[in-house]
Amino acid sequence: MAFGWIEEQARVRRDAGLVRRLRPRPAESPLLDLASNDYLGLARHPEVTEGAARAARTWGGGATGSRLVTGTTALHAELERELAAFCGFEAALVFSSGYAANLAAVTALGPHGSLVVSDAGNHASLIDGCRLARGEVQVVGHADPRAVRKALATHGGAAIVVSDTVFSVDGDRAPLAELAEVCRERGAGLVVDDAHGLGVLGEGGRGSAHAAALAGAPDVVVTATLSKSLGSQGGVVLGPARVIDHLVNAARTFIFDTGLAPAAAGAALAALRLLAREPERAARARAVAAELYTRLTTAGLEAVRPDAAVVSVRAPSPERAVRWAADCRAAGLAVGCFRPPSVPDGISRLRLTARADLSGAEIAHAARVIGETRP
Amino acid sequence: MAFGWIEEQARVRRDAGLVRRLRPRPAESPLLDLASNDYLGLARHPEVTEGAARAARTWGGGATGSRLVTGTTALHAELERELAAFCGFEAALVFSSGYAANLAAVTALGPHGSLVVSDAGNHASLIDGCRLARGEVQVVGHADPRAVRKALATHGGAAIVVSDTVFSVDGDRAPLAELAEVCRERGAGLVVDDAHGLGVLGEGGRGSAHAAALAGAPDVVVTATLSKSLGSQGGVVLGPARVIDHLVNAARTFIFDTGLAPAAAGAALAALRLLAREPERAARARAVAAELYTRLTTAGLEAVRPDAAVVSVRAPSPERAVRWAADCRAAGLAVGCFRPPSVPDGISRLRLTARADLSGAEIAHAARVIGETRP
Ligand SMILES: Cc1ncc(COP(=O)(O)O)c(C=O)c1O
Ligand SMILES: Cc1ncc(COP(=O)(O)O)c(C=O)c1O
Repeated sequence: MAFGWIEEQARVRRDAGLVRRLRPRPAESPLLDLASNDYLGLARHPEVTEGAARAARTWGGGATGSRLVTGTTALHAELERELAAFCGFEAALVFSSGYAANLAAVTALGPHGSLVVSDAGNHASLIDGCRLARGEVQVVGHADPRAVRKALATHGGAAIVVSDTVFSVDGDRAPLAELAEVCRERGAGLVVDDAHGLGVLGEGGRGSAHAAALAGAPDVVVTATLSKSLGSQGGVVLGPARVIDHLVNAARTFIFDTGLAPAAAGAALAALRLLAREPERAARARAVAAELYTRLTTAGLEAVRPDAAVVSVRAPSPERAVRWAADCRAAGLAVGCFRPPSVPDGISRLRLTARADLSGAEIAHAARVIGETRP
Repeated sequence: MAFGWIEEQARVRRDAGLVRRLRPRPAESPLLDLASNDYLGLARHPEVTEGAARAARTWGGGATGSRLVTGTTALHAELERELAAFCGFEAALVFSSGYAANLAAVTALGPHGSLVVSDAGNHASLIDGCRLARGEVQVVGHADPRAVRKALATHGGAAIVVSDTVFSVDGDRAPLAELAEVCRERGAGLVVDDAHGLGVLGEGGRGSAHAAALAGAPDVVVTATLSKSLGSQGGVVLGPARVIDHLVNAARTFIFDTGLAPAAAGAALAALRLLAREPERAARARAVAAELYTRLTTAGLEAVRPDAAVVSVRAPSPERAVRWAADCRAAGLAVGCFRPPSVPDGISRLRLTARADLSGAEIAHAARVIGETRP
């Protein structure tokens, strides 16, 4: 019987208590949100939603085709120009998602005969990019520039080093300066995913590469998503113009995918302009994370010191992590819960996001609820 | 020097005249559009753009997280219910793009130890899905059920057969009934991509599986995109509830991707309701394609008889295809131009899309321009 094997896998998941279910949320949730990636609190900002609405009215519900055929509007070009300028890069290319941007960057920059060195903690989309790339892939230990140097030394030809800038599970930061140095020693390109850095790190939220004085460098490519700090949907690759031109000509998830919907482009552009005008939002997200961390650890919880706006709190087991998150929810707090198999290291945690628009009282309340419901 | 090899590839492309450039279009184009995939002419329909605008205002610019965390809104659930009901399936799951939906379906349904049989003419996203799947992949000749039967006979365990329903380049149809029969002989699952069938084929545009009496079958899974007939962005997988539950738990491009933006969900839902109310749009798209084909072949051009809304016209060489498309554009007509390396068979063609909202005069005019500019 077709798909019969699915039953067995479903049973194993049920027995392990690992079944995932979708929980549709209402437009006005009564929960205090510490689970979304809306780091700057812009997804519901009226300028952002009006940006989406106006773009849909002006340009239509969809882009109507591949970016190479009918799917590039003047709005896409405008968004690309402003993203590049804001982040300090020569050029930018927008995709339908951050996932697609990562597949594009890694496959197009890791061709046959090249070496792709990938951090063991990288996001699923970078991992899938490595698996699709025609180059040889070497996975190295997490945040370990010495291991990267060793891997690069095994290869004579073209090479790239691929890493998240801020790792999505624990919210810790990659050693960007050291990675760039190691890359330069060997003439390798550095490709980093700033999904959790854009809007939070760097001057006014210009991102991790800007913070590390790597923005605009000829050997650095940054990917990011428009779906977190910018409150929209979509992805972007930032880099030298020749790299961007290469992606236009070679990246399958660019060529064979419909362009980003105008509404998403319009929302992201509005959020970007808002951030440029209100640069303090980035620092505020970091400050909220720091305060949340302090309150939680003061209450005796084990958390990872946040490098950006993600605060990861350790749970004793997958079951207790799930229970903890459910207890938080029952007490009016939405928190993320990461457990195997989404986390490769087998450690379960609550994942909290520090939105820039959380008030001091909300932070204190959240920390109290998390402390009181601890397993 | 990092990325130095890109220059050499760029030079080869320049010498071959194969450089692709983005051409941002204005909101009100003076060109008659036969290049987009807006088959039903709904992308600019006021109900669709208002659906997008309203959703952005109600739900925000983005979904704010993975569908498993904060990214499932009641709007996503509503869209999934209505897509499943319209197409005749038990359940549906919406993705950020059709590309992501295809990666999800093929990887989650082609696990380690299974066989994945894939048509040689399949879309890039299905091919990438095959490359990411852990199962063994066998590529078979285009639209050849006997080759599929032979491939399935080589394998004892679980298997799926993967095919476009309407192939994007030539617009020809897969032999769905025969494929289903071959699958049933061997207990294999059938996974078909109806990107170019939804909204065009089947009763009132219910799609290719519905037309072949395969909708809702326990061994059939359909993927589709919201970015063509539905004038929006996003993808969907339709199938038995247990298959959809499996995707929720296992598909990486579902789990590790931000949910579809509310505006895109709202636009697609509005388009779906419009199509349900005005089912004649689907038949009209097919009639436009048939008329265009008749006019072109009567004028002596070599075209593929359209099975859906895509009309493919042969060009003598890549250079002359590019020139032909440029001459059409100069005469006020936007047409698609497919040439190597986007087409694996090395044949260059103009690709015309027959929008349901083209008038008889527009069809006649388009055919005349294409005939007069022929190389
Ligand atoms: C580090 C990282 N990269 C890429 C992505 C994918 O971006 P998107 O959701 O826009 O596809 C995500 C999360 O979704 C992420 O956390
Ligand atoms: C056959 C086919 N499948 C899948 C896709 C991808 O869908 P999307 O553009 O929504 O990612 C396309 C075109 O874009 C297509 O032509």
